[in-house]
Amino acid sequence: MIAREDILAAFHFRHACKTFDPTKKISDADFNLILETGRLSPSSFGFEPWRFVVIQDPALREALKATVWGGQGQLPTASHVVAIFCRKEGMRFDAAHVRHMMVDIQKLPENIVAMKGERYRKFQESDFKLTESPRALFDWSCKQAYIALGNMMTSAAMIGIDSCPIEGYDVDATEATLAKAGVLDTGKCGLAVMVAFGYRINPQSAKTRQPLEEVVTWVK
Amino acid sequence: MIAREDILAAFHFRHACKTFDPTKKISDADFNLILETGRLSPSSFGFEPWRFVVIQDPALREALKATVWGGQGQLPTASHVVAIFCRKEGMRFDAAHVRHMMVDIQKLPENIVAMKGERYRKFQESDFKLTESPRALFDWSCKQAYIALGNMMTSAAMIGIDSCPIEGYDVDATEATLAKAGVLDTGKCGLAVMVAFGYRINPQSAKTRQPLEEVVTWVK
Repeated sequence: MIAREDILAAFHFRHACKTFDPTKKISDADFNLILETGRLSPSSFGFEPWRFVVIQDPALREALKATVWGGQGQLPTASHVVAIFCRKEGMRFDAAHVRHMMVDIQKLPENIVAMKGERYRKFQESDFKLTESPRALFDWSCKQAYIALGNMMTSAAMIGIDSCPIEGYDVDATEATLAKAGVLDTGKCGLAVMVAFGYRINPQSAKTRQPLEEVVTWVK
Repeated sequence: MIAREDILAAFHFRHACKTFDPTKKISDADFNLILETGRLSPSSFGFEPWRFVVIQDPALREALKATVWGGQGQLPTASHVVAIFCRKEGMRFDAAHVRHMMVDIQKLPENIVAMKGERYRKFQESDFKLTESPRALFDWSCKQAYIALGNMMTSAAMIGIDSCPIEGYDVDATEATLAKAGVLDTGKCGLAVMVAFGYRINPQSAKTRQPLEEVVTWVK
């Protein structure tokens, strides 16, 4: 059990840190915790569409700067940069990855695999209409990745580590750079989002949010 | 600062709780923390596409059971059920909400509003191609909501509260039920995801995940 005020303090500590102290590196123990909270995040049906690619190669970070306009300060200074990839067609109800997850990871008996697989097919085809386009399917996979993204930034803040989520990039051009570097197979995965971790060098800016009464409605 | 082992313990405590103890209610102080960690979650450009609708009305919960197949155990027993809505066209670069966020919430000076607005337009039109369809735009808004979703479940787990994320529903039919109840204006918002909170009544099942080496790649 963690005290409410300690949790809240971490949410106020977290901000989109644009520039990190390049001399400070996150310890292995701390970064492993961040990765672990990503890995343990929930995903729809438990099918974990994500891959966490930790980009430490300075040459690749430099190459990414050309198309990641939202990462100009973070890419050169962050202790760790993570690109979260998601599977594309590999998340379809009839894909090998889905069966692998049910059989080898979730270790479901074959009759449950059949039932869950059928439920998943209906979910994709009818409930969420994810089979209507490759983009709809991929965007849905990416939604799951944003759960992990949020958890990784939150756990980082809780141990005093800053972060910055990065969507500021040209998707096609950035994927091309990652593919050219041999990091991304665009036939299998796409870039969901990026996130940088490190230690702030500047004071954080004031946090702005809509007041609670503008974002919360009670139906009693 | 929170100890790494306490953070990790919360991630192991959290599971998709399918049935809650109907006699146990979350205190106001605890539920306010959960809402607050949703409200304080980051979103792209800081534009907060979300609305958190807390559904406590037993009649509406009962009506939702007809189309929310993934919430059969949770809807009748959860202490609190939250439907996260996201704005649709209201997230477009030229929408009133976007200007409201920049001017009234972020309190940016007019010259910065113009610059950020132009950057946001390019982001939507070119970088992420969000203007290619209403679905692409809405799914992107929903991605932000999943950050809040993850944070709310994590903060709940940290104070000993169980949760269950719910995507198991027919989107159109469930939105129709919410619209009929006067809760959702489908012209403005859509249902992003649901999440139930409460206290477990059964032991949690074993957590299954791909091993770290299968989901993490280092580029050094």
